[in-house]
Amino acid sequence: MMARNTDMRWRLPLVCLLWELAMIILFGVFVRFNAESDIAGWEKAKQEKNITSDAENDFYFRYPSFQDVHVMIFVGFGFLMTFLQRYGFGAVAFNFLLAAFGIQWALLVQGWFHTFENGKILIGVESMIGADFCVGSVCIAFGAVLGKISPVQLLIMTLFQVTLFSVNEYILLDLLHVKDAGGSMTIHTFGAYFGLVVTAILYRPNLEQTKDKQGSVYHSDLFSMIGTLFLWMYWPSFNSAISDHGDAQHRAAINTYCSLAACVLTTVAFSSLLQKKGKLNMVHIQNATLAGGVAVGTAAEMMLTAYGSLIVGFICGIVSTIGFVYFTVRAPLFRKY
Amino acid sequence: MMARNTDMRWRLPLVCLLWELAMIILFGVFVRFNAESDIAGWEKAKQEKNITSDAENDFYFRYPSFQDVHVMIFVGFGFLMTFLQRYGFGAVAFNFLLAAFGIQWALLVQGWFHTFENGKILIGVESMIGADFCVGSVCIAFGAVLGKISPVQLLIMTLFQVTLFSVNEYILLDLLHVKDAGGSMTIHTFGAYFGLVVTAILYRPNLEQTKDKQGSVYHSDLFSMIGTLFLWMYWPSFNSAISDHGDAQHRAAINTYCSLAACVLTTVAFSSLLQKKGKLNMVHIQNATLAGGVAVGTAAEMMLTAYGSLIVGFICGIVSTIGFVYFTVRAPLFRKY
Amino acid sequence: MMARNTDMRWRLPLVCLLWELAMIILFGVFVRFNAESDIAGWEKAKQEKNITSDAENDFYFRYPSFQDVHVMIFVGFGFLMTFLQRYGFGAVAFNFLLAAFGIQWALLVQGWFHTFENGKILIGVESMIGADFCVGSVCIAFGAVLGKISPVQLLIMTLFQVTLFSVNEYILLDLLHVKDAGGSMTIHTFGAYFGLVVTAILYRPNLEQTKDKQGSVYHSDLFSMIGTLFLWMYWPSFNSAISDHGDAQHRAAINTYCSLAACVLTTVAFSSLLQKKGKLNMVHIQNATLAGGVAVGTAAEMMLTAYGSLIVGFICGIVSTIGFVYFTVRAPLFRKY
Repeated sequence: MMARNTDMRWRLPLVCLLWELAMIILFGVFVRFNAESDIAGWEKAKQEKNITSDAENDFYFRYPSFQDVHVMIFVGFGFLMTFLQRYGFGAVAFNFLLAAFGIQWALLVQGWFHTFENGKILIGVESMIGADFCVGSVCIAFGAVLGKISPVQLLIMTLFQVTLFSVNEYILLDLLHVKDAGGSMTIHTFGAYFGLVVTAILYRPNLEQTKDKQGSVYHSDLFSMIGTLFLWMYWPSFNSAISDHGDAQHRAAINTYCSLAACVLTTVAFSSLLQKKGKLNMVHIQNATLAGGVAVGTAAEMMLTAYGSLIVGFICGIVSTIGFVYFTVRAPLFRKY
Repeated sequence: MMARNTDMRWRLPLVCLLWELAMIILFGVFVRFNAESDIAGWEKAKQEKNITSDAENDFYFRYPSFQDVHVMIFVGFGFLMTFLQRYGFGAVAFNFLLAAFGIQWALLVQGWFHTFENGKILIGVESMIGADFCVGSVCIAFGAVLGKISPVQLLIMTLFQVTLFSVNEYILLDLLHVKDAGGSMTIHTFGAYFGLVVTAILYRPNLEQTKDKQGSVYHSDLFSMIGTLFLWMYWPSFNSAISDHGDAQHRAAINTYCSLAACVLTTVAFSSLLQKKGKLNMVHIQNATLAGGVAVGTAAEMMLTAYGSLIVGFICGIVSTIGFVYFTVRAPLFRKY
Repeated sequence: MMARNTDMRWRLPLVCLLWELAMIILFGVFVRFNAESDIAGWEKAKQEKNITSDAENDFYFRYPSFQDVHVMIFVGFGFLMTFLQRYGFGAVAFNFLLAAFGIQWALLVQGWFHTFENGKILIGVESMIGADFCVGSVCIAFGAVLGKISPVQLLIMTLFQVTLFSVNEYILLDLLHVKDAGGSMTIHTFGAYFGLVVTAILYRPNLEQTKDKQGSVYHSDLFSMIGTLFLWMYWPSFNSAISDHGDAQHRAAINTYCSLAACVLTTVAFSSLLQKKGKLNMVHIQNATLAGGVAVGTAAEMMLTAYGSLIVGFICGIVSTIGFVYFTVRAPLFRKY
């Protein structure tokens, strides 16, 4: 027994160090700067495309949105999970660990699929956004397995999920030519079902007994609200981050802004309606309000009007809240009970 | 009695659903994308104005500031109100609800006054900033009525205040041609007095007895500080968000930065001076430090020098702290005791 | 004794008011807007340099990064220090005070060294970033003296440190022509050693007895994690904020992103390895994860590849965690025990 514990103790450090070494080697072999982040490359691109201003560098079109997405992944998802007092710090810390590994592996896997030229992966600000998106999908699945798996299992889950995410994305976007700018399908639905599957695999009857440990307390709810709000506020950046420059990015932000606002009102309505005493259920507020951002993702950059976005948000708030109330036993997305 | 309770229970869901349906219909009839967020519109604008780069789209001039303002409204004002332990989560959640409804209604009302052409309201990133500004005014008034009104009353207050805000703004800016870039008058003063009036209407002597429930505790103060800091840090974005492109936005940010810094020092000085034991009063720090941003709002984009901004901040810190100490009985702005 | 207390009571208000008055006078004499934030100046600059678009104003290249840095200084460093329950609110509030004074004094001192023309200091968005950087160095030193010095002593420390920082920076960058874009040397190393020296000066044996007051608790750790994450997430903005426009800013952000991610994995590995039960030590996570950003600072904008950045992060996580475990007695950087 003791031998096994000693064995366990070495597992996390070993996995972290060896996998990070593998990242270094793979990055050394494959990853290079793309034309917009390379000294000679940008000079050449400016001459070829007759660009006179550095303001044309993709960095200035996307970096502010990238930083918003970055906050969503690390603070948003991290703190959303703190609702369970018992897992508060662990939720934030493990989310930090999985995301830090995930973005490196995602840069590689996504690079192999999307920006692989002459044996090299060319990275830029869009690659960083893509990597964060991919990890967002893992964060969603993490919500379903929180408190059930060890850090090492979490890293293994991340390795697999990032890989499958990229394969799935490649099939949907590149082979089937599906439009999914905000990643409703590739990121959120995929993440939720992946989490569901992992939970099902890990499911053991006696785990049900730990349910009483999952109560939330006052301060946990406020911390969790930090996560919710940063996700909610920055969702327009999430859905517009990799849209085309100009009107498309502009439109994606407006549509998401509208859908999210509508979603809050219907969530409040149904949360209040379905609770015994008409009180608001914090868990609904913290989750269903985000459904409006998820649902509008796919169509955000299209000519979906502000009016269409409100309808999407309206429906999502209702469906998501009802889903929470009636299907919480194994609800995949941010399962909380 | 029971009938009345059942009646109450239906009120919030009904208001939320019906008002949101009204929003959808009104948006459907009136709201369209403006030239910079519309596919054909932006193509046409580029040709007409001889614009060669998408970097000229207003989105890139204003979206980072918009996101900062968005954080101020939802995290800034929301968490500023958590100082009362009893209302912590409610403060954040109700602020969320009123702001989500408010921005939709503000897009409409402000649109009718400002961007109404051929029977349509044309929206873009500036409309989103305007809607957030308008809701900021409601958040300020919310601070005065916190814990005294129900969610339904809050939504009704939002409906009226957003409407009056827009009328007041139209009279000041469009009819009297007053300059008020950072909204010191239209947003902050209006919000504070509106809150004062609502409090006066709701005032019942026996409410005074609830004062003892208003104590703050250690963790509440730290949560409240999150709100304060995000308001303080992003105020330069608030004051520069809708200034003219170029030097005006640049100058508004610098002036606000200077005024806010000066305000912190005089707030600390007078807070320490006026307390019995020379200790700092957290409530002063959490509120008076923001006065520098409010006061410089109107003049931020003008050629007010950094030196002039420091003087504004210097005076505001003093006036605001003294105001808190001597007029807290019904102080309008962020009344806390 | 009472006289002394009365005397003490006047000290903080007096220092705040007089120093702020001094700032106003010095700003009045010296500080003016630079060409990009001045009405006439920007008009003239556009004509001289044949600039047709306001998008060329430095504001749009740097303001989003400035705001990220601003959050790092006030929320990042402020909340990082809340790990000690006893100093939670004080840590945030005093950090706020020192930073608000520091940025004003830094605008002046850095201005005299860098943008002094015809007897005037010309300020713009880059000056605000520079002032925030300089104050970041004071925040680091603050971590070493937290709970040991009074607010007045803190302001005096800030006055000296900002001055010495600027002298040191001038010698390194302008006289010795050292490259240090992310300020690894000028900001972080300088800040850490300055804090170490101040601690040594203030050291009195009986202070050791207060060690038992330095325990951290559950909620303190979550608040502290807010600080950690905002520092970690926005570090790419920190290292790229004053890089050259275009590919250099782009590259600095990517390199920092990679280094930070690698650093998390090796920090977790060594934290787990060096703890008795293989558990993660939160203090390591909260500090060593940032070392990757610090270390890559100097070289971030150079053609250091993503692969090189990973190696920097890899080594830093290890060195920093080992340093914490074996040299915590008087460790300068964010000393916590």
